[in-house]
Amino acid sequence: MFTLHPIGNVVSPLRDPKAAPKQAYEGAPAAWLVIDASVAPGLRDLRVGDEVLVLTWLDRAERNTLDVHPRDDVTLPRRGVFSTRSADRPNPIGIHRVRIEEIAAGAESSTRVRVDALEAVDGTPILDIKPVLDPRRDG
Amino acid sequence: MFTLHPIGNVVSPLRDPKAAPKQAYEGAPAAWLVIDASVAPGLRDLRVGDEVLVLTWLDRAERNTLDVHPRDDVTLPRRGVFSTRSADRPNPIGIHRVRIEEIAAGAESSTRVRVDALEAVDGTPILDIKPVLDPRRDG
Repeated sequence: MFTLHPIGNVVSPLRDPKAAPKQAYEGAPAAWLVIDASVAPGLRDLRVGDEVLVLTWLDRAERNTLDVHPRDDVTLPRRGVFSTRSADRPNPIGIHRVRIEEIAAGAESSTRVRVDALEAVDGTPILDIKPVLDPRRDG
Repeated sequence: MFTLHPIGNVVSPLRDPKAAPKQAYEGAPAAWLVIDASVAPGLRDLRVGDEVLVLTWLDRAERNTLDVHPRDDVTLPRRGVFSTRSADRPNPIGIHRVRIEEIAAGAESSTRVRVDALEAVDGTPILDIKPVLDPRRDG
């Protein structure tokens, strides 16, 4: 058993998980990553234009589910969760590939990073940010 | 604070983290993912040839580090961790893109999944398996 400590939270106009796009390229809005002051030194080499992977904790997920209807569409046959990108899974970690549009100071020494398109709802905890190394293979 | 429950472990000829490749495409060997019987139903739609993302917990990482020498090369200037793929970071989750080569029964009803190239060392806990959705963009 391992323990995660979120490094920040998503601030987004998306409030309703049921209305949120399933993937960023399905019309997700820009969002802010509000990152805690305690880890701010780790952000110092991020630049506007960088493509990064944002890892989130999908805190509304059902962790005991081992099969799901893909895309929450009950007309599609159930599949094993490890063949889907469903949030419902034993360790509900979201991976989101985004581009950085702005980096700004936030309240109480937090850092705010605006990204182009994110399908995570408002308040989602952020676990990590990693650079994209190889645009073709990376992830 | 959130809790992760590993779904299995890596079995690999790689034993020494210092000798392990930094990335899979730098000569990482094939490895087995040994997945617990308790989550086996979630694996049922995985097939040989599938490209998947394997998420691991890099349990030897230094979690208090906010800057690192990239690639552990002390001749390279330190960078903020969120601009590197270093294992040393607040939430040391590894993301590995691999291809499934074989799926077999393991001991005590576990399932063994062989993947083509994995830079994680023997014993590394596995957190999740996700399909690659878009080979260009995904991750």
